Amino acid sequence: MTENLAGDLDDLIDLDDLARRLDHEHVFHSWSAQAQSPQLVVASGRGSRVWDHSGREYLDFSSQLVNVNIGHQHPAVVSAIREQAELLTTIAPSTVNLARGEAAKRIVDRAPDGFRRVFFTNGGADANENAIRMARLHTGRDKVLSTYRSYHGNTGAAVVSTGDWRRIPNEFARGHVHFFGPYLYRSEFWATTPEQESERALQHLRRVIEAEGPSSIAAVLLESIPGTAGILLPPPGYLAGVRELCDRHGILLILDEVMAGFGRTGRWFAFDGYDVRPDLITFAKGVNSGYIPAGGVIISDPVAETFDERVFPGGLTYSGHPLAMASIVATLDAMASEGIVENARAIGETAIGPALAGLAEKHDVIGEVRGEGVFWAMELVADRETREPLAAAAMGRLKGAMVERGLLPFVQDNRIHVVPPCVVTADEVAEAVAVYDEVLSTVGEN
Amino acid sequence: MTENLAGDLDDLIDLDDLARRLDHEHVFHSWSAQAQSPQLVVASGRGSRVWDHSGREYLDFSSQLVNVNIGHQHPAVVSAIREQAELLTTIAPSTVNLARGEAAKRIVDRAPDGFRRVFFTNGGADANENAIRMARLHTGRDKVLSTYRSYHGNTGAAVVSTGDWRRIPNEFARGHVHFFGPYLYRSEFWATTPEQESERALQHLRRVIEAEGPSSIAAVLLESIPGTAGILLPPPGYLAGVRELCDRHGILLILDEVMAGFGRTGRWFAFDGYDVRPDLITFAKGVNSGYIPAGGVIISDPVAETFDERVFPGGLTYSGHPLAMASIVATLDAMASEGIVENARAIGETAIGPALAGLAEKHDVIGEVRGEGVFWAMELVADRETREPLAAAAMGRLKGAMVERGLLPFVQDNRIHVVPPCVVTADEVAEAVAVYDEVLSTVGEN
Ligand SMILES: Cc1ncc(COP(=O)(O)O)c(C=O)c1O
Ligand SMILES: Cc1ncc(COP(=O)(O)O)c(C=O)c1O
Repeated sequence: MTENLAGDLDDLIDLDDLARRLDHEHVFHSWSAQAQSPQLVVASGRGSRVWDHSGREYLDFSSQLVNVNIGHQHPAVVSAIREQAELLTTIAPSTVNLARGEAAKRIVDRAPDGFRRVFFTNGGADANENAIRMARLHTGRDKVLSTYRSYHGNTGAAVVSTGDWRRIPNEFARGHVHFFGPYLYRSEFWATTPEQESERALQHLRRVIEAEGPSSIAAVLLESIPGTAGILLPPPGYLAGVRELCDRHGILLILDEVMAGFGRTGRWFAFDGYDVRPDLITFAKGVNSGYIPAGGVIISDPVAETFDERVFPGGLTYSGHPLAMASIVATLDAMASEGIVENARAIGETAIGPALAGLAEKHDVIGEVRGEGVFWAMELVADRETREPLAAAAMGRLKGAMVERGLLPFVQDNRIHVVPPCVVTADEVAEAVAVYDEVLSTVGEN
Repeated sequence: MTENLAGDLDDLIDLDDLARRLDHEHVFHSWSAQAQSPQLVVASGRGSRVWDHSGREYLDFSSQLVNVNIGHQHPAVVSAIREQAELLTTIAPSTVNLARGEAAKRIVDRAPDGFRRVFFTNGGADANENAIRMARLHTGRDKVLSTYRSYHGNTGAAVVSTGDWRRIPNEFARGHVHFFGPYLYRSEFWATTPEQESERALQHLRRVIEAEGPSSIAAVLLESIPGTAGILLPPPGYLAGVRELCDRHGILLILDEVMAGFGRTGRWFAFDGYDVRPDLITFAKGVNSGYIPAGGVIISDPVAETFDERVFPGGLTYSGHPLAMASIVATLDAMASEGIVENARAIGETAIGPALAGLAEKHDVIGEVRGEGVFWAMELVADRETREPLAAAAMGRLKGAMVERGLLPFVQDNRIHVVPPCVVTADEVAEAVAVYDEVLSTVGEN
């Protein structure tokens, strides 16, 4: 009888079940139909691994939403959060706070010369919001050009619903124009070489700028390397060419480094690998691996100076939040002292790159492999000739099969993004590649 | 010589100076011209007090941006953050997480019946963004009506600059209409009694709805008690009347409880004091006092059900962040077990209300005092007859004088908002009131 009772009690406190039950009853999930409740419980983690309450472990080759660059539960960052929590969790943006200054200094130290100030936000969307606001007020123009294959976050109405004066300098609910960026594998420009893709993509952008009216355009907003859209490394000369077009017309260049920045490519910023210097840099994710919600804009001096005497009409309650700031300081220090960015680069060159190339040789379903650092995509196709994307149902089966085998993949459209934390080891890469290999062998079986 | 050296070292590590220097060089501040650098350093705090590195203390009657409802550095919330930090700092919204379910359950437990789900965000702006998105998709209409005297946050462009499919169901960069809400002291409706103000404000809203076209209106978005706009308690019957107008036309009612919610009024929700039931409730600030950036939408069942089988096209990387969730659980539990909401109500009734009434009797510069709980405004006027607002320069001098005397005030336009943490004591109220009294006596002196 005592045994039964113990069993009952065990049932009562199955934390994974409890977590699932509370989730399904009370949590409304993003980007999904609520009837499809998520099942995967995560209770804790370390490095490239996470586990549920019963100890079932998963190798995380998604870095969640490609944000956990430093890996899960890095002890130095956890300690910094714990220490700052004892001191001061929250304070208004209008005060001076040491952790905030220290974080800003570390960030500008990684940026090119001529970037001295940082505006902090809670994430990537509001980073882009504020960069766009700065560009519009700096140039006195309102159009923002960005690519169809892009993701810049998901906000869009709060300041317009605001009724007080803060609405007025922010009523830019218009003026977004989309164009096509370079993507040789599925060229929009009938190009067959990287050089041609670059040249034609630039000509296309030049024509859009001319047709929209250069003097109406505040900014071109680009992910340095489009991430969710497929890890589309810009071809030689493209970013430099965009810079040139912007300069010719007094247009600002905003580079969105939310996903690509802070180690993901094996560099501090993705654009460091290209001959380009933006006017505004937006960041989030990797800057503190999302341990506390944070993001921001790194501002070039001429744009910052626009607001020396003129009020910048933007803000949010948690701008420069002390815990977020302490976690940024600890993250950037640990990444530097532990060579984490270098590890990402080396792993990309010596482990991920070669292994994915091997998979591509073996599996016809892989149409293209591209990437660098810990930022790779395998594009899956039903037919290598036509490049027809692998169907959604097959992708769903692949995803399920990977999770079943203890691998958390990042699956997007017809692609598997290979995006582990920057601290991933060669052994972990081998382990993940074995799972990819196994599940890719089953494509077409059902 | 050693003494000199020690002196030099002390200079080198004056942390307040260091904080100011780093701030002025590298931090870009919200809602301000950057040349006016903030001077006030905050290093730590407890309850209603904060202090800098040298130990200079301030009594916080601003609750920062009216968010620190539970007071600074509440030990139970700090502990919860520290414990969760050891376990799991961050995880993707698409997983199941126990802290998230626990937080959602505690929130819906405070909401009216028929609210079972919570969508989490990073703050108040993105809470309103997502509530508006839900209302638009639920109704299939796009206009959102809100008042001129309101603040709902400061985002507005990221999803429209996004190029991928997630842009398309969110391209609502239009359809915001503003109207006047009730505010008897400065009536827009030539009213002289609260009843008349309520009636006429409702007639005005009815006319706006008719003129805009009821079937084009997705939602009316209101702060239950407009906060930054002046702590404008709705007159009798107003919120119930708005509800009735909404019902008549199939319009959703979104109540923004970001500033007014979670204890500020001496109730869990400000609207609990009125005869009204919203369709969507937005929150942030008080839910965890901003210890970790967090906000969200509490969703009534019919709206939630719209997204049972249909994808909700919204999301953000840090939705349901484990540390934020753990801090919500600890905050709501501590507020309940320590009677913090009750304290806010009692302090409002027995200490703040009577003391401000006393000040108003003594100082002609006070045109009106209004509020409840720890949510009060003193409206300062140059002339009690004309109600001409006290000039900005005089307000600036008052603010400086209060900070000099060790009081952090919340000054907005021609008003002093008396908004201490909900844990404030009667002695602290007396201390603050003495400072208000002293500085108000100096008005008109220079
Ligand atoms: C390039 C890019 N920009 C912006 C964002 C938006 O960031 P957040 O979800 O923190 O708002 C993302 C998120 O995936 C992103 O990948
Ligand atoms: C009523 C109300 N709604 C929304 C917001 C925006 O919140 P956040 O600054 O966290 O975006 C505020 C901030 O002051 C507010 O007072």
